[in-house]
Amino acid sequence: MTTIRNLSAALLAGAAMLATPAAAKEGMFTPDQLQEIASELQEAGLELDPASLADLTAFPMGAIVSLGGCSASFVSPEGLVVTNHHCARGSVQYNSTAENNYLENGFLAKEKSAELPAAPGSRIYVTTEVTDVTGEVRAGTEQLEPLARYETVEQRGKDLVAQCEVTAGYRCRVASFYGGAQYKLIKSLEVRDVRLVYAPSDSIGNYGGDIDNWQWPRHTGDFAFYRAYVAPDGSAADYSEENVPYRPDHFLKVSAAGLEDGDFVMAAGYPGSTSRYAPLAEVENTFGWAYPVFEGLLNEWIATIEEAAPAGSDARVKYESRLAGLNNYSKNLRGQIEGARRVGLVDRRRAREAALGEWIAADPSRAGYGEAIAELSELSEESAQASRTGFWYNNATRPALYGTARRLYRLAHERMLPDAERSPGYQERDMRFFEQGLTALDRRYDPAVDRAEWLLFLTGYIAQPMEERVPQFDAALGLTAETTAEDLPALLDNFYSATSLGDGATRIALMGASVEELEASEDPFIKLAVAMYAYDRELEEQSDIRSGRALALRPAYMEAITQWQRESGVLTYPDANSTLRITFGKVMGGSPRDGMAYLPFTTLEGIVDKDTGVDPFNAPPELLARIRAGDYGDYALDSLGTVPVNFLTDLDSTGGNSGSATLNSRGELVGLLFDGTFESVNSDWDFDPRTTRTIHVDSRYMLWVMEKVDGADALIEEMDIVR
Amino acid sequence: MTTIRNLSAALLAGAAMLATPAAAKEGMFTPDQLQEIASELQEAGLELDPASLADLTAFPMGAIVSLGGCSASFVSPEGLVVTNHHCARGSVQYNSTAENNYLENGFLAKEKSAELPAAPGSRIYVTTEVTDVTGEVRAGTEQLEPLARYETVEQRGKDLVAQCEVTAGYRCRVASFYGGAQYKLIKSLEVRDVRLVYAPSDSIGNYGGDIDNWQWPRHTGDFAFYRAYVAPDGSAADYSEENVPYRPDHFLKVSAAGLEDGDFVMAAGYPGSTSRYAPLAEVENTFGWAYPVFEGLLNEWIATIEEAAPAGSDARVKYESRLAGLNNYSKNLRGQIEGARRVGLVDRRRAREAALGEWIAADPSRAGYGEAIAELSELSEESAQASRTGFWYNNATRPALYGTARRLYRLAHERMLPDAERSPGYQERDMRFFEQGLTALDRRYDPAVDRAEWLLFLTGYIAQPMEERVPQFDAALGLTAETTAEDLPALLDNFYSATSLGDGATRIALMGASVEELEASEDPFIKLAVAMYAYDRELEEQSDIRSGRALALRPAYMEAITQWQRESGVLTYPDANSTLRITFGKVMGGSPRDGMAYLPFTTLEGIVDKDTGVDPFNAPPELLARIRAGDYGDYALDSLGTVPVNFLTDLDSTGGNSGSATLNSRGELVGLLFDGTFESVNSDWDFDPRTTRTIHVDSRYMLWVMEKVDGADALIEEMDIVR
Repeated sequence: MTTIRNLSAALLAGAAMLATPAAAKEGMFTPDQLQEIASELQEAGLELDPASLADLTAFPMGAIVSLGGCSASFVSPEGLVVTNHHCARGSVQYNSTAENNYLENGFLAKEKSAELPAAPGSRIYVTTEVTDVTGEVRAGTEQLEPLARYETVEQRGKDLVAQCEVTAGYRCRVASFYGGAQYKLIKSLEVRDVRLVYAPSDSIGNYGGDIDNWQWPRHTGDFAFYRAYVAPDGSAADYSEENVPYRPDHFLKVSAAGLEDGDFVMAAGYPGSTSRYAPLAEVENTFGWAYPVFEGLLNEWIATIEEAAPAGSDARVKYESRLAGLNNYSKNLRGQIEGARRVGLVDRRRAREAALGEWIAADPSRAGYGEAIAELSELSEESAQASRTGFWYNNATRPALYGTARRLYRLAHERMLPDAERSPGYQERDMRFFEQGLTALDRRYDPAVDRAEWLLFLTGYIAQPMEERVPQFDAALGLTAETTAEDLPALLDNFYSATSLGDGATRIALMGASVEELEASEDPFIKLAVAMYAYDRELEEQSDIRSGRALALRPAYMEAITQWQRESGVLTYPDANSTLRITFGKVMGGSPRDGMAYLPFTTLEGIVDKDTGVDPFNAPPELLARIRAGDYGDYALDSLGTVPVNFLTDLDSTGGNSGSATLNSRGELVGLLFDGTFESVNSDWDFDPRTTRTIHVDSRYMLWVMEKVDGADALIEEMDIVR
Repeated sequence: MTTIRNLSAALLAGAAMLATPAAAKEGMFTPDQLQEIASELQEAGLELDPASLADLTAFPMGAIVSLGGCSASFVSPEGLVVTNHHCARGSVQYNSTAENNYLENGFLAKEKSAELPAAPGSRIYVTTEVTDVTGEVRAGTEQLEPLARYETVEQRGKDLVAQCEVTAGYRCRVASFYGGAQYKLIKSLEVRDVRLVYAPSDSIGNYGGDIDNWQWPRHTGDFAFYRAYVAPDGSAADYSEENVPYRPDHFLKVSAAGLEDGDFVMAAGYPGSTSRYAPLAEVENTFGWAYPVFEGLLNEWIATIEEAAPAGSDARVKYESRLAGLNNYSKNLRGQIEGARRVGLVDRRRAREAALGEWIAADPSRAGYGEAIAELSELSEESAQASRTGFWYNNATRPALYGTARRLYRLAHERMLPDAERSPGYQERDMRFFEQGLTALDRRYDPAVDRAEWLLFLTGYIAQPMEERVPQFDAALGLTAETTAEDLPALLDNFYSATSLGDGATRIALMGASVEELEASEDPFIKLAVAMYAYDRELEEQSDIRSGRALALRPAYMEAITQWQRESGVLTYPDANSTLRITFGKVMGGSPRDGMAYLPFTTLEGIVDKDTGVDPFNAPPELLARIRAGDYGDYALDSLGTVPVNFLTDLDSTGGNSGSATLNSRGELVGLLFDGTFESVNSDWDFDPRTTRTIHVDSRYMLWVMEKVDGADALIEEMDIVR
């Protein structure tokens, strides 16, 4: 939603890509890049015309949608959308009660009228138009000072969005590519009436749970179905009984033909963020400091929540989702740290920078690139320094009620400005989500747990030397050099006993409060937010200035990389930025480590082997019985002699790709992308073709579960199944 | 050393073996069985005459030796013995000081005079004669009552051993095969002057440590060298400077030719114990109760020691070895429990018993087998019941000082009998090890830790209902129904403050004490031992009676199994009993689980990938540098392009096989067997040919380390290296 997303500076990709351009499937290509690699795509096995992939309003790209954070696709003419179970699980949870626990039992609407509203805030974004707005955004900005440059780019982005969203029911954003070298205005139909159609039980859709997360071998039925509804006139609308299923221009056929090892596949989705071009200073800071330190804190954080919200308590219910997220992140960080060590990430990046430097030095006309690189490296070093300095202070602002107070006070300030001048996140277009966030807090907040979290972070904060601390923050909280961890509980008790922000209605009411009213508030969290406002804005301005400097430097750097790589026959793609990308490759096992191999498919029988009967390895008895009976239906793969469950590919993916349609050479849906292997997670920084593998749920398993276990025959009927 | 070892009863092997007799490499064959499978061996690739393997005094079996608990082999005409690093590590530790830490730095004797005495009690047993003594042991015992039968068999075994050991320097034992259907008298030269020649550093020999234990992929250089020394006249002798290297009749050539995937291999060694023929009741009790309960206790036990002996403390040094053993056992139990669940062990055993029952029912002449099976099943149920009843009481007798007191008081009783009538372990031939045990306690005992362990076990003991407790034990300790865990610390303090058994000299002196003297002792541990003596002997007698019953039943059962299996073309081999066995098969990766494969070899490069610089993944810098430089010498395998480190086979092995020579088709040493994969550990109960894989260190890696890292060229020179 923000116009400028990727603040990481840009340098260059890894050596492996250059060494083996043919084998490596690195590349999250924008649709318009596909024409440039048309021959490569055809050689790899694509049977569709590569040019057709570039047209977002044609088949198959017209069927690809975003859920905001997840990817999905239309699979019927009546707006049926398939995505990952874990992307729709919030809606399953939202509709569950003690009597009707759909997480435990799964949910299947027997007919359309039984479909349930998805969780508040659920959206389906159907991209309708992409316009290059580089000129409009960048014109004349190079001459400006850094802060003015940043603000101008931001303002122009907001103006373009406002203009675009004049059409009701559409959502627009300006996305930055190649570190600000290119901007695109993306216009999407924003489907607001999203309904849950079918989700298998957790014991299928979340099979393996946290234990199997990021792991291969995998046996997760990570799929679920939504349906998009619109007003009878076809426009986006809030939930209403009168709404009708949305009729997409294109939808995917679902293949039951089965894949073989080595078959061509591609995936279309919305990868969130990568740092493939991050300069050495950023890599060093991240892997030498930020990740290890934060991983240590994460583990303490998880333990703190688990202790404050014991298993089985009401509080635990509210924090399950956060715990799952923190555990996921912790495992991801461990994988990243381990992967970076294994591949020698820092040394590789250093070597690449040196090689790029040589390429620049070889031609005097490239001197400008060299200067830009030097300045960008310096800037990266400053940014790294700022992140280290701000580490504990930033963590100390995490508690939910303090965050709420800060957002409310900021909103009061922003509301004094004309809408077009407000910061992203505080404009009228953002207020629906703003209010939803304040409301939803009730289901995610417990004062004892919030207090325990804050205690953890403040303990870390005051353990720093005084010169690393923030005087304004110390003053506002009454912290001195003598304050010890033993003093903190009493301090925090004052906050939690005196605040009224724990009450949802109070929070919503304060959305209308003025600056003066908030400044007069006696609520301790609001008082703290008021006290820190100037300092926080100063931090933000410093960050904006760095961003503004980067905006003048990174385009030059990316240009250098693009030229340099082109000489090696490699097409440079932009870092992921939550826009539609296509990655292609093939079904492929791998060797994650010496002496070991991942086979490309798992099978039904692996579920029986893995099953302990205890969550998360507790497949439904009916499913186990069908497997034991060898009841494969039409879904067994001859080469396996049984039904494939999950498969591996060498596709290039990251967070946000979850739910992406996995397509065969004819553009038919053969599965859903849902995870990467543990050895792959550091591909966000450095794609290693030896170990990067993406995990998909096979369409044959989806169909087998639907037919043999859950009786979802009507949905199978609704889709166009091909062989 | 005992005449009767395997108390587990005998039934039948798993279904897989029957289903795929050709593929499964199950079988720990006695040398004299090999003639019966001569054609199978030749078909598998053996180039030697199978008959030659049956002759223990000929090549290659004449080169295979036992270390008592580990296996080993002669590899030079001058008594050089190769075994696993983990089998010789106690000797490395024994010789290490803070200044000369051979664990950390490795040890290499530059010449024979620099070779160091192995740890006290180290032995090399060279088998010289094996005699079938079934008739002498069993004659007339079937008519006896169970206790008399047991005692007669035991007494005859002791008599045969005494007669055999008349020749000085030899050690003899009577081993029982097929549950007592067969007895063999095994005579071995007992080399008592064992010296440490060469052991790589822990960072090679124990690479991966506890983390990689039971795991594949593996990169452990688990090898070390001893040398056998004897008196100048060739007889076994205690350490003396005058001793000379033993000249074995046979030694193995060491192959540097390299193995390929699928190559024939065999291993000769001394597997300790298996339960392949255990009846259903025993399997059910073990996996349904004993293993899960004990695994839980093991984890508490480990935590108790770690808390009482914090890392870095002097006490921790004394308990490192026990902790390693308990962790190893805990991991093994987890693997067994998980493996049993995965293969459905209990159901499989039940099905096999039913199938055997059908075979018996098919022919009236087999009725006797049926009766024996029924009685044996009943007996197994009784034994299982006894093990459940005694669980906490037996654990409560574990503390080191209490065990010492019990052994001393038992010794005083036994010494009143003529030597030939004493129980095994208390005869004159056992006194050297008895005394060594009392002495060595100083290096393995800390009162605070011992007390903490006892507290844990007693807490479990008193938590039982009164009817499960032992009244004599309660009375002796002053425990009542009202005693709670809070009362125990004071009780234990009385023991540890008043005992003098913590003093080594006191313990040794008490070896000469009479029953009366000990009964007059005020030492609380001795008083407890005296109080429990009658009860413990009663328990032992009950156990002996059950054993005596089994001695009359199991031979019949094993005969039934043997006949039944023969009809399916399967040769029945006896359960492991620490006697020389041969297992054959081939180099083979595997699929431990659905979607995953183990490759047959690991390589040098895998060490670099795995290395973190932190123990246990801290290979010596010199080793890493050689790998990075690609300095493979003559040891790279063409098919790998690098040096193999460890490899997998489908050989059938268990604890005690460690250090076994792995031989190629010509009987040349191609590696050392040192571990099994995690998925294999339950093969002790049920050999699963899909998942059972044995891990070996490759002779090429051994030679590469010796030449390129440790400079052990003289040893390479001494051995006969062939290609």
